Amino acid sequence: MKIYKKGDSQSYTLGVFPTIESLENKPNYVKRIVVHSSIEKNRGYPKIQQLCKIHHIPIDIHDKTIDKLSPKNNCFAIGVFDTYESSLNEGNHVVLVNPMDMGNMGTIMRTMLGFDYVNLAIIRPAVDIYDPKVIRASMGALFHLNVQYFDNFESYYQLYKHHEIYPLMLKGATNIHHVQTENIHTLIFGNESSGLDDSYLNYGKSVFIPHSEQIDSLNLSMALGLTLFHFSKQEFKERKVLRGNV
Amino acid sequence: MKIYKKGDSQSYTLGVFPTIESLENKPNYVKRIVVHSSIEKNRGYPKIQQLCKIHHIPIDIHDKTIDKLSPKNNCFAIGVFDTYESSLNEGNHVVLVNPMDMGNMGTIMRTMLGFDYVNLAIIRPAVDIYDPKVIRASMGALFHLNVQYFDNFESYYQLYKHHEIYPLMLKGATNIHHVQTENIHTLIFGNESSGLDDSYLNYGKSVFIPHSEQIDSLNLSMALGLTLFHFSKQEFKERKVLRGNV
Repeated sequence: MKIYKKGDSQSYTLGVFPTIESLENKPNYVKRIVVHSSIEKNRGYPKIQQLCKIHHIPIDIHDKTIDKLSPKNNCFAIGVFDTYESSLNEGNHVVLVNPMDMGNMGTIMRTMLGFDYVNLAIIRPAVDIYDPKVIRASMGALFHLNVQYFDNFESYYQLYKHHEIYPLMLKGATNIHHVQTENIHTLIFGNESSGLDDSYLNYGKSVFIPHSEQIDSLNLSMALGLTLFHFSKQEFKERKVLRGNV
Repeated sequence: MKIYKKGDSQSYTLGVFPTIESLENKPNYVKRIVVHSSIEKNRGYPKIQQLCKIHHIPIDIHDKTIDKLSPKNNCFAIGVFDTYESSLNEGNHVVLVNPMDMGNMGTIMRTMLGFDYVNLAIIRPAVDIYDPKVIRASMGALFHLNVQYFDNFESYYQLYKHHEIYPLMLKGATNIHHVQTENIHTLIFGNESSGLDDSYLNYGKSVFIPHSEQIDSLNLSMALGLTLFHFSKQEFKERKVLRGNV
């Protein structure tokens, strides 16, 4: 096993939780599991064993591999999987233009899953979603999502111009609190530091998130979270209880 | 200059931007500025010079101090300031119970400022807001806020029980989409990993943020951002433009 490099055809999950997520959601791509000899105490291990048995995936105990790939020593399991391409489906989409931060990308994936957005288009150049840091930050949410890369926004747009398109921009024309839709839509977000350039004012209905003048802007994952929360309001409004019996 | 330790009576900002924020908002506490010899090129430096002149604060060029306090070498200015205590005012409040993560705390402060929440109560044990990592993550938002520590929630509550109280909890009684108020209120959030314990169900009106069952919970700073966005909706709804002339 070698440390992942951008574009490698195999990557790996670091940690019990994302490894279980990979086994539950993309078992066909998981080639083997490597565990640390001290994993026996971990309460997620029986689940890993059960899933590996069902899907005929080998488990190796190999402390050195763990120590090499996860130098911080708080990792008990690694799931080695073949990277794969997925395609967007006809639900709502999120488009990220040139996202560069791995931690942000993980948080974004997790937040998308939290609001039932499962389609993510990424416009290159961009961070590699299969970097183990992204997978870890996503806590395995990656394995629930359809993620498709595009070389430029126009190639995405040609395929999905029948969606309602909402670019999120500091210069957006409409206050988000005045936007609501029940139709299939695409929410577009720019790069962490530069946002979307003015050309995006020409697509669909540009939207801004109002905030005080005391800050320059909200950070990307926060802006995205607020936007998904807002756009999915109708879907979540009638839930009476989240976790009453925990 | 020595590296900050929890409870020290002096701390410091790392970087030009948070240093300017300290000089603009809390100049009386800033004792001196240390800059790197290569700062001349930085476009924030004239602002620092101007503010230091107005407030009679000395500027020293001292590369070794910068290298010692900011080992990552991307820092051009350090502002040394006396830590101070501030008191909450009669606006809306945020209460954080036992927050432990420095990066989260910085993001939270910045998000609060973005939605005009300037009062933060922190229930101990908790992260030290004067740790340079917190200040940096807050991008200087700390210097805009009133932050007050309490030994337990009850001491806070005795002073502010006339507020409308909203604990944010996975087991909360009411879906956030059905809560709205124009009154002075307090929003309470638990620790990053454990949330609020059941005793908070007895205070005010407990609220949950609905999300899909695919994730366990939203992370703390995201939950806080969504909540402030929601509760400040009336205030921000009528803004016609955010940044039209940038």
